[in-house]
Amino acid sequence: MNISSKLLSDVVDVFASLPGIGKKTALRLALHMLNSDEAYTIDFCTALADMKANIRFCQQCNNISDQDLCSICVSPRRDPSLICVVENLKDLMAIENTGHYQGLYHILGALISPIDGIGPEQLDIPKLVERAAKPETKELIMAVSPSIEGETTIFYLSKQLADIDVKISNIARGVSFGGELHYADEITLGRSILSRTPYQK
Amino acid sequence: MNISSKLLSDVVDVFASLPGIGKKTALRLALHMLNSDEAYTIDFCTALADMKANIRFCQQCNNISDQDLCSICVSPRRDPSLICVVENLKDLMAIENTGHYQGLYHILGALISPIDGIGPEQLDIPKLVERAAKPETKELIMAVSPSIEGETTIFYLSKQLADIDVKISNIARGVSFGGELHYADEITLGRSILSRTPYQK
Repeated sequence: MNISSKLLSDVVDVFASLPGIGKKTALRLALHMLNSDEAYTIDFCTALADMKANIRFCQQCNNISDQDLCSICVSPRRDPSLICVVENLKDLMAIENTGHYQGLYHILGALISPIDGIGPEQLDIPKLVERAAKPETKELIMAVSPSIEGETTIFYLSKQLADIDVKISNIARGVSFGGELHYADEITLGRSILSRTPYQK
Repeated sequence: MNISSKLLSDVVDVFASLPGIGKKTALRLALHMLNSDEAYTIDFCTALADMKANIRFCQQCNNISDQDLCSICVSPRRDPSLICVVENLKDLMAIENTGHYQGLYHILGALISPIDGIGPEQLDIPKLVERAAKPETKELIMAVSPSIEGETTIFYLSKQLADIDVKISNIARGVSFGGELHYADEITLGRSILSRTPYQK
């Protein structure tokens, strides 16, 4: 692409550096910026800079927050006996959006993955063990991706939590709701038969 | 979408205000920003602010430029006898990307559209008339969209240029190269028969 201004070309480059944004879309976004008010650009950059400068992480569960504790941890409507253990913020948001969970969360920050050089020390496990040991905590729900890394992390956590009197559960795994059975992959389908559940009349 | 931080939610909103970016993509971009270095955000905002503060428009053709005259207008390789009249920067870039045009440009800034309240006074016509009157200018190529607004603009320009000895031409209109004939719309196909060109052996 031949852009006659280095200033515009730089903006195209920064937009194109965002995930999922190609050169053509980046040019469209840059021209939109170019044609809009200066106030718009100022608002845009202020929002970004404010977030980077002021965002904090909940001291209890590592969720993002504007305070020391996040809105989920301080909410009196949430059940403090349940802690849902997730890999990252995206997974927390996905579970929140279902509207089916009313307990608290714990964000690990990563999953154990020796092949990527991620060991247990890079996960926030000490704070989870501490929270699990509190008398009000009854159950930890492991809501991590059903992958080798996820399984490894759950196994490691279960060893760390062995001495603590707390129930550990996994989210249900099986064929998706609304999906056609023959589209499910073999491993999922095979395991869903092995882990069948009794029919509730 | 339930976002526990107003700072993050503000960034999602500014990304979602960009054209073609929905809430889900905006969240993905905002989380990318959140997880990247502070230097990345600074570079991002600096590029935007630099462009808004310093970008200039070519005093001859209205193309964007870092100087008084754009790189096309000052290039000794371009043919100054040809001026291609376009609506906006996007159209100029589209023509440049074909690599088939070696003349100069003139960006009007808009097309005459009474229904949108755009009259001839909002187009940069005086500078075009002045350029057309220069002895080195031989031909003006009207490369505007084939729409009512485009036709109106070409008609108005031709009246304004009536006293000037300059050739006025239109870009060729007809069925697209590489397209299937039966997919062409009726108006295009009908006109392409009426404006058929002699076969060159």
